[in-house]
Amino acid sequence: MNKVFADLPVTVFEAMSQAARDNNAINLGQGFPDDPGPEDIRRAAADATVNGYNQYPSMMGIPELRQAIAAHYGRWHKLSLDPMTEVMVTSGGTEALTASILAVVEPGDEVVVFQPVYDSYLPIIRQAGGIPRLLRLEPPGWRLTEEMLASVFNEKTKAVLFNNPLNPAAVVYPREDLELLARYCQKFDTIAICDEVWEHVIFDGREHIPLITIPGMRDRTIKVGSAGKIFSLTGWKVGFVCAAPPLLRVAAKVHQFLTFTTAPNLQAAVAYGLGKPDEYFYDMRKDLARSRDRLTKGLESIGFPVLKSQGTYFLTVDLSPLGLNETDVEFCKRIVTDYKVAAIPVSAFYEQDAVTSVVRFCFSKKDETLDTALERLSDAV
Amino acid sequence: MNKVFADLPVTVFEAMSQAARDNNAINLGQGFPDDPGPEDIRRAAADATVNGYNQYPSMMGIPELRQAIAAHYGRWHKLSLDPMTEVMVTSGGTEALTASILAVVEPGDEVVVFQPVYDSYLPIIRQAGGIPRLLRLEPPGWRLTEEMLASVFNEKTKAVLFNNPLNPAAVVYPREDLELLARYCQKFDTIAICDEVWEHVIFDGREHIPLITIPGMRDRTIKVGSAGKIFSLTGWKVGFVCAAPPLLRVAAKVHQFLTFTTAPNLQAAVAYGLGKPDEYFYDMRKDLARSRDRLTKGLESIGFPVLKSQGTYFLTVDLSPLGLNETDVEFCKRIVTDYKVAAIPVSAFYEQDAVTSVVRFCFSKKDETLDTALERLSDAV
Ligand SMILES: CSCCC(=O)C(=O)O
Ligand SMILES: CSCCC(=O)C(=O)O
Repeated sequence: MNKVFADLPVTVFEAMSQAARDNNAINLGQGFPDDPGPEDIRRAAADATVNGYNQYPSMMGIPELRQAIAAHYGRWHKLSLDPMTEVMVTSGGTEALTASILAVVEPGDEVVVFQPVYDSYLPIIRQAGGIPRLLRLEPPGWRLTEEMLASVFNEKTKAVLFNNPLNPAAVVYPREDLELLARYCQKFDTIAICDEVWEHVIFDGREHIPLITIPGMRDRTIKVGSAGKIFSLTGWKVGFVCAAPPLLRVAAKVHQFLTFTTAPNLQAAVAYGLGKPDEYFYDMRKDLARSRDRLTKGLESIGFPVLKSQGTYFLTVDLSPLGLNETDVEFCKRIVTDYKVAAIPVSAFYEQDAVTSVVRFCFSKKDETLDTALERLSDAV
Repeated sequence: MNKVFADLPVTVFEAMSQAARDNNAINLGQGFPDDPGPEDIRRAAADATVNGYNQYPSMMGIPELRQAIAAHYGRWHKLSLDPMTEVMVTSGGTEALTASILAVVEPGDEVVVFQPVYDSYLPIIRQAGGIPRLLRLEPPGWRLTEEMLASVFNEKTKAVLFNNPLNPAAVVYPREDLELLARYCQKFDTIAICDEVWEHVIFDGREHIPLITIPGMRDRTIKVGSAGKIFSLTGWKVGFVCAAPPLLRVAAKVHQFLTFTTAPNLQAAVAYGLGKPDEYFYDMRKDLARSRDRLTKGLESIGFPVLKSQGTYFLTVDLSPLGLNETDVEFCKRIVTDYKVAAIPVSAFYEQDAVTSVVRFCFSKKDETLDTALERLSDAV
């Protein structure tokens, strides 16, 4: 069997969700809401399922959704995309990332990857024959530095993977960091594969700046998005890739042999959703920020040092000041069995030199779910 | 960009569907029905979308569907599968095949592939570093021979890809051919990746025999299925992989980084569908056989030599006796522009030494669609 995959663990998200089920615990691990998602979008999908088209759509996605994606980014980011040659629909953000990596990376290419790293990146880079060059981001700021980039970028740097907003760190990167990264991409003729699935899940009036909009990056950035994250319908697995035609063209060749296409009834509903007025997105952010604040205050009142979340469904807690004498993994094992609350150890996002004192909690949950979790954790430290 | 994919053409199915749209032609190319698919299954999906679960399901698929798949194969083929360790849901048959190939094939491994070959197999084998060993099946019988297998199987033969019923040839293989293939798999310790997405689309009382049920093959066969094909809902992209635990375990590791999981609302509807009584499947076959007969008779009355279809949505026509002095590709180009009917040239399924005289027509269409196509083609030869 293929050694790249054979000995990999099951993803930490799946494993912790299983541990939550096994322990009858509240699942603040894997990132998904415990409400059913926007009713009008679900009704639009149901309508398309009963009255609309359910056979093969175009391999690139239904024209209606590709146009909606282009219009959406035009409206939100003044990004002008040609829906027919620069936008592709995929079966979720994971497929979008895999298609992008396999399109760009060839044996021997170096690929810069920031830790904490989403767990699909490294195996797919390795499957492509690429050589990951790992960088290490650190709490509390998780910022990019010139020193860091200078230590790995070189003539062989074919691509960089960059996740912004960053899961699990819950950071939304400022323009300064993006410009720094852009400078290195241009200097070394590097393609940026930008995992921006959390782009709409940002708080406190923060702005998400797509890397593709930074000067010099328009033709060297592959932008990955996810309707599941934007609309809190994580199971739908409708994602998108936006890139200049020479990049998108090859990603499409990979896509056609990964999944070929994506359910047109769900695509139609996502097209409807992307056309919602700006208020919808601001309200969603406000609701999630409220949940973030509820969990933050609760954890702080128990005594957890919370690193404030700028975006994503997640906040993190730094265990180091607590003197618990246990790693994040041990802590997570303990709280899922003893306190019936599942969380994710951030060290799972590192392949080497892990940060082992930070734990991620998902707050995209009903108030009572969060309150019960807090009650259960009340004497965990 | 990655040379494995960069210079590939767009799939012939997508290209011909585009040509059909461009020419305002009837599309008898890409395999999909022109009816909306079973209403009760679509209603079940709509219901799950409005009232059911729309967040991340288990990476392996919802338990309800995995149980339904195991029960379905138990009922139809006396195949006993453990739903938790031997069944995985994927985002369509294409993803199932890609996950299976990437799970098994490593650089330098030889992989036996029969032409005509579905167009995703070879690029994914090459991406895995595998070396395809191509065999050539021929009309009118498209049968396997001992000579053929003896010419390629050897100690380095890691896997064989086998499609049965065979698209585009519309053959349902008899036990004799399966036993021959099984003998070679056992002799050379080869894993069979079996693309059986057309398993239910068979006619004239024929039986589909899953390769995994042939003695000696239970632990060395990866069986790929497709709900889109079984239920004529080709856009849904819900597929499955069934295999012994050591094989499935690795395919799951690939799957988690290709798409991670598949829409749970669609999965729930497929679980409902697989539980339908046997009559449902027999009626579906009868309806499709009627369409096949309608198109067969019509084409024959125009003067096309039709190779009788045993299964799939397709029949093929052998142009060679017609003395047209054109290849299948030229013929298909001519009929889509001049007669406004799209079909698929079978040579597109060959990488070398192509059969260039056979054209595939899709008959899973309404009577009036088939009749109009026949009218248009009435003086094409
Ligand atoms: C694909 S499961 C992981 C979901 C997610 O983004 C997370 O929990 O980090
Ligand atoms: C994935 S598009 C191809 C559909 C099909 O099976 C065919 O037309 O052969």
